Amino acid sequence: MSHSAGTALPSINALLFEAKARKGLTFDEIARALGKDEVWVAAAFYGQAKFTPEELNKVSEVLEIEVGLLQAGLGDHWWPNRGLGPLPPTDPVIYRLYEGVLVYGHAIKAIIHEKFGDGIMSMIDCKINIEKKADPKGDRVLLTFDGKFLPYAKW
Amino acid sequence: MSHSAGTALPSINALLFEAKARKGLTFDEIARALGKDEVWVAAAFYGQAKFTPEELNKVSEVLEIEVGLLQAGLGDHWWPNRGLGPLPPTDPVIYRLYEGVLVYGHAIKAIIHEKFGDGIMSMIDCKINIEKKADPKGDRVLLTFDGKFLPYAKW
Amino acid sequence: MSHSAGTALPSINALLFEAKARKGLTFDEIARALGKDEVWVAAAFYGQAKFTPEELNKVSEVLEIEVGLLQAGLGDHWWPNRGLGPLPPTDPVIYRLYEGVLVYGHAIKAIIHEKFGDGIMSMIDCKINIEKKADPKGDRVLLTFDGKFLPYAKW
Amino acid sequence: MSHSAGTALPSINALLFEAKARKGLTFDEIARALGKDEVWVAAAFYGQAKFTPEELNKVSEVLEIEVGLLQAGLGDHWWPNRGLGPLPPTDPVIYRLYEGVLVYGHAIKAIIHEKFGDGIMSMIDCKINIEKKADPKGDRVLLTFDGKFLPYAKW
Amino acid sequence: MSHSAGTALPSINALLFEAKARKGLTFDEIARALGKDEVWVAAAFYGQAKFTPEELNKVSEVLEIEVGLLQAGLGDHWWPNRGLGPLPPTDPVIYRLYEGVLVYGHAIKAIIHEKFGDGIMSMIDCKINIEKKADPKGDRVLLTFDGKFLPYAKW
Amino acid sequence: MSHSAGTALPSINALLFEAKARKGLTFDEIARALGKDEVWVAAAFYGQAKFTPEELNKVSEVLEIEVGLLQAGLGDHWWPNRGLGPLPPTDPVIYRLYEGVLVYGHAIKAIIHEKFGDGIMSMIDCKINIEKKADPKGDRVLLTFDGKFLPYAKW
Amino acid sequence: MSHSAGTALPSINALLFEAKARKGLTFDEIARALGKDEVWVAAAFYGQAKFTPEELNKVSEVLEIEVGLLQAGLGDHWWPNRGLGPLPPTDPVIYRLYEGVLVYGHAIKAIIHEKFGDGIMSMIDCKINIEKKADPKGDRVLLTFDGKFLPYAKW
Amino acid sequence: MSHSAGTALPSINALLFEAKARKGLTFDEIARALGKDEVWVAAAFYGQAKFTPEELNKVSEVLEIEVGLLQAGLGDHWWPNRGLGPLPPTDPVIYRLYEGVLVYGHAIKAIIHEKFGDGIMSMIDCKINIEKKADPKGDRVLLTFDGKFLPYAKW
Amino acid sequence: MSHSAGTALPSINALLFEAKARKGLTFDEIARALGKDEVWVAAAFYGQAKFTPEELNKVSEVLEIEVGLLQAGLGDHWWPNRGLGPLPPTDPVIYRLYEGVLVYGHAIKAIIHEKFGDGIMSMIDCKINIEKKADPKGDRVLLTFDGKFLPYAKW
Amino acid sequence: MSHSAGTALPSINALLFEAKARKGLTFDEIARALGKDEVWVAAAFYGQAKFTPEELNKVSEVLEIEVGLLQAGLGDHWWPNRGLGPLPPTDPVIYRLYEGVLVYGHAIKAIIHEKFGDGIMSMIDCKINIEKKADPKGDRVLLTFDGKFLPYAKW
Repeated sequence: MSHSAGTALPSINALLFEAKARKGLTFDEIARALGKDEVWVAAAFYGQAKFTPEELNKVSEVLEIEVGLLQAGLGDHWWPNRGLGPLPPTDPVIYRLYEGVLVYGHAIKAIIHEKFGDGIMSMIDCKINIEKKADPKGDRVLLTFDGKFLPYAKW
Repeated sequence: MSHSAGTALPSINALLFEAKARKGLTFDEIARALGKDEVWVAAAFYGQAKFTPEELNKVSEVLEIEVGLLQAGLGDHWWPNRGLGPLPPTDPVIYRLYEGVLVYGHAIKAIIHEKFGDGIMSMIDCKINIEKKADPKGDRVLLTFDGKFLPYAKW
Repeated sequence: MSHSAGTALPSINALLFEAKARKGLTFDEIARALGKDEVWVAAAFYGQAKFTPEELNKVSEVLEIEVGLLQAGLGDHWWPNRGLGPLPPTDPVIYRLYEGVLVYGHAIKAIIHEKFGDGIMSMIDCKINIEKKADPKGDRVLLTFDGKFLPYAKW
Repeated sequence: MSHSAGTALPSINALLFEAKARKGLTFDEIARALGKDEVWVAAAFYGQAKFTPEELNKVSEVLEIEVGLLQAGLGDHWWPNRGLGPLPPTDPVIYRLYEGVLVYGHAIKAIIHEKFGDGIMSMIDCKINIEKKADPKGDRVLLTFDGKFLPYAKW
Repeated sequence: MSHSAGTALPSINALLFEAKARKGLTFDEIARALGKDEVWVAAAFYGQAKFTPEELNKVSEVLEIEVGLLQAGLGDHWWPNRGLGPLPPTDPVIYRLYEGVLVYGHAIKAIIHEKFGDGIMSMIDCKINIEKKADPKGDRVLLTFDGKFLPYAKW
Repeated sequence: MSHSAGTALPSINALLFEAKARKGLTFDEIARALGKDEVWVAAAFYGQAKFTPEELNKVSEVLEIEVGLLQAGLGDHWWPNRGLGPLPPTDPVIYRLYEGVLVYGHAIKAIIHEKFGDGIMSMIDCKINIEKKADPKGDRVLLTFDGKFLPYAKW
Repeated sequence: MSHSAGTALPSINALLFEAKARKGLTFDEIARALGKDEVWVAAAFYGQAKFTPEELNKVSEVLEIEVGLLQAGLGDHWWPNRGLGPLPPTDPVIYRLYEGVLVYGHAIKAIIHEKFGDGIMSMIDCKINIEKKADPKGDRVLLTFDGKFLPYAKW
Repeated sequence: MSHSAGTALPSINALLFEAKARKGLTFDEIARALGKDEVWVAAAFYGQAKFTPEELNKVSEVLEIEVGLLQAGLGDHWWPNRGLGPLPPTDPVIYRLYEGVLVYGHAIKAIIHEKFGDGIMSMIDCKINIEKKADPKGDRVLLTFDGKFLPYAKW
Repeated sequence: MSHSAGTALPSINALLFEAKARKGLTFDEIARALGKDEVWVAAAFYGQAKFTPEELNKVSEVLEIEVGLLQAGLGDHWWPNRGLGPLPPTDPVIYRLYEGVLVYGHAIKAIIHEKFGDGIMSMIDCKINIEKKADPKGDRVLLTFDGKFLPYAKW
Repeated sequence: MSHSAGTALPSINALLFEAKARKGLTFDEIARALGKDEVWVAAAFYGQAKFTPEELNKVSEVLEIEVGLLQAGLGDHWWPNRGLGPLPPTDPVIYRLYEGVLVYGHAIKAIIHEKFGDGIMSMIDCKINIEKKADPKGDRVLLTFDGKFLPYAKW
């Protein structure tokens, strides 16, 4: 088991992680081959996003997994069942994100309302990016959510 | 009650929100007066961050609240007791952030490890920024966490 | 206390319910005066939606509540903090809706994916309607959610 | 595993999903063969509704599964044990339904009482329908619950 | 506080319990005056059922409470918000009922299905009765639920 | 799996359910052979009650299961570990019983105290009966708990 | 507040604790005056047991509380609503009892079954005693539950 | 499975229970052979206490289990991971113990403090005993905890 | 409210915190006056430890609070009801301690067993110390638990 | 299963514990071979810390496990998914640590703030040490957390 999800992943996802380890590839390298971003590809490996049939073909080539296996497990008749526990997260990396919601959630909500009005930042039409920012006092993680603002319907 | 926290805020924080509403100021306007960012100021209004005595003086001026009241409630002998519920969040704005952790948490963790090694993005040495990005298909929220990477100690 | 929320409502909302009872008005009657639907107006009474300043003026007239009170409590500087417990619901009316999610949630998800692809029905851009359908075997409730389909972003 | 339930389904249900994927059929196509609605058929595939022996015969024909298997697993001596987790739902599609209960539950209850009196909308004598409504701003999901009103007994 | 609900009851319900204690009446005596059963009346005292205006008049007479108070609190514009915690129950009397569900729930379900088919015993169209049965080895409680069988809709 | 418990039953119980299905017997038919009531027998099938060695012999005969298997699994050295989840129940049949506790629990407690004094209805010395009552408006389920009253010890 | 329950006690119980502190009496001293045991009396002070009218008179005398107050709050029309949280207990004294259930519960159950058969130790017909046992290595607490064995009914 | 723990026991513990059933021995009989008490031995069978190597040899002889198996599973390099669920307990025998904590926990704490001062009854240095006390009204269970009093450190 | 507990403290504890703030004293300064350690004194201020009558006198002098108030609230008839939530902690300082248990709890247990055998580190006979250790890379917190080892009783 | 984690460990970790038991080594002995501390090594065995490739080679030598197995399971492409339940802990050793947070958490927070200002003790840059301190009244456990102080960012 070379992936790090606390929750047991379905075998088709475990297969992806094992092939990635065997090939010694990073998510960024796989993502470039697919013309996608590394965060999105990692999400898809965890079963949190859906590859198109073309993308599955690419994955098959890059990781040398038989395409039939991928199509059977992640193809047309499969839809991601999103959400990967546990919550509250026990791993410190994921807990810190959760703590961000716990400590800064109301402040973020207040600023969104002041800047945009009554509505939300979509997590469906949202792109997530991670960058490494060099800093003499220690490298920094830049984590960005770029999500569409959706105003509440009134009727 | 003009603020939007589901949890009842201590009276000193309620006072801040009421004064802000009475003066008709945005967090950004207050933040400029303090030389701070609007997200941090909103967090401090919710009792999630600590003003210095000088900042309390500025808050007193800007919001026309007696400084003694602020010093008594938020001064030297008070320390924020951080965390503002409920969790899971019931408000859709905050829930979407939580959903980001739920759906993309493992992917974010995987990419942080690939880019930085075994460690975390600090939520203590972390700055949060929100920007409005115009988009013909609808405005977008750019929410950025800029947190220091902390490698795990080994001993 | 003439409203039926299990959770104590803020006093400004309690005021709305008391005035409605005193005037003997239904949500439908109030909604017509506002040019809105009764479900949305009921949601706003429970603090789950936001009136515009013009709507607050109308509410003030219809219910004979001083407009200043409404503006102070529900006006520009207030944003709904949505979500009203308890969950799981204890009241049978609300529990049956919850049971609909529990029993039919996966089936609804499967059909949405088959008809629309990978995405969700928005609960933000969503209108809810309730109609009474006469039936010789007993009247029926027609409860309709009309929500925008949002495809997942890929990046 | 070609279905999308987060919870592991009993093998007899997994068999139905696999056959459906193998045959490349939609729920709507299977439903037409059975003279039923697609939502109900999807619910039955998830073990949330009960086929009659005749319907099992039809399912056997349409999906080319041996009828004995179906009768043994889903026949006379089997009764659905309804409810399919997790709750709160982690998948965004199902969570949005849950959020509908969380945000609009009390409003829906209020309107049902005003229109029907003291009682509930049955989730047992209830039919659920999903339709795709074209819209220039983006297709919409029409999700309808058509449930019998049941007044509370008094005694 | 002369009633025994662990959860604080609304003041209007507390008033009913206090008047009942002051008058020294049993639920059975009040129920006879109303032409109702004692269990239902007790439920209504706990805010779990709704009196008609005529019944409120009778309650007013029997308990010598001003009818205006009762109409304001429990009248036309009030609907019961049912469910009274805590769950799991901490009081042994109520816990034993809960234990009945925990230990015998699946057996009861199995027998209902064998005797009636796929459906439920309604708790909405249900009457509850309690009788004292003398027994030389110690009196026994006869607790009966008389609920309508509701078959599941298929569509 | 022909029984309906949501929780996986131990294999010895699964065996009982399979044999019952294979023989096409109802709980009532098995109960008559044992000189017991159908509810109690169903409870025993779910591992919630204990057969005597003589009863195990009878079960062996009626269901044509080797008696040694039954003695090994359910005999002298086995004691029921009662309680069968999930709680809150997700299946509507069992949930309605739970809802009975939630809505009418305090009323039932109040009437038991008024009729019997300070004590409880035992769920250990309790017999449960289910009957079908024909009714022109729809059959009704009569569910009776006949439990010994136990006064609290004082010391 | 001179008692130690984490949960706020009703004012009538707080009154008992305050009077006890004012008079400087131990539970044992009060219990002797009532002809009862100290554990039972402490339970009654916490609202977990019911005094008879005669016992309330005695309590009134011993603690110099007006008897009318006691009769109004704890008299004929009041029934204990038992159970006092929180659970899991946070106080180490009570947690250790809970830990006894957690660690030794199954062993205790096994021995009760071996010694008595299929049944339970009643917590309703149960007397609890605490004694101080001198020991050179440190005093010991002897905590005894003396509860009636109740065999399961079969029917 | 001849033991009664709701939670699946590790195979080495299951082996102990199976051998005990096969030999037809009670815990008391095994305990005598070991020079221990039956409750402690039952706890050890459930993995809640640790046998010495000598005791494992004795267990091996008495139950005719190969000693190497016992040493491998329960020997020097194994330490009990105590606590055996579920909590709240679902089995009535164990629940009654839990109910004792729930109803009488605060009273027990109050008496311990009055008799011993500020400290706890240790559940680590604690011996548990169960005796059968004949009684004309029905046998009684005498369950005793004999635990060392530990005063709180002050520093 | 100048203390930082998320949970509302009893008024007598709030009084202590207010007086401490008014006098501008640190816990260390108060502790020196009492001949105690600052961590223990802080615990006592939070109601988590018990002052002797002599210590209350000292507290009265140092903080200029009337001694009668302290004796009434924290004196002979009061016993700490320990445990102060919320758990899981929401404040990052306390959460990090909790995370220590979550991540390193099993390792700590393993080393305690290897070094001491089967037993625990007492949290009752335990002293806690905090020191500031200067470090060129940033000051460090030295947090020490000095607790008595307690071997498990066997009987 | 010779390790003591309540939660089933991945097979690669179970392998480490089995080899350690087979070789009869303590964590301290393994730690010396690795040039690490025993607590950290125990944490790594439980999957809560990450070995470098060189450390894996050493582990392979010391425990005589094939290095390929270790590299495949714990090597470059694996990242610890930290956190090991259950929480609240059921084992008394780990519970006592948890109780330390519950009882002394707020006091520790207060002292950290007084000594260091607004910030936290890092659990990421933290070293944990356990020592045995001989004491005539019974040996003591010295458990030390040496963690970097991190001040909150302000922006």
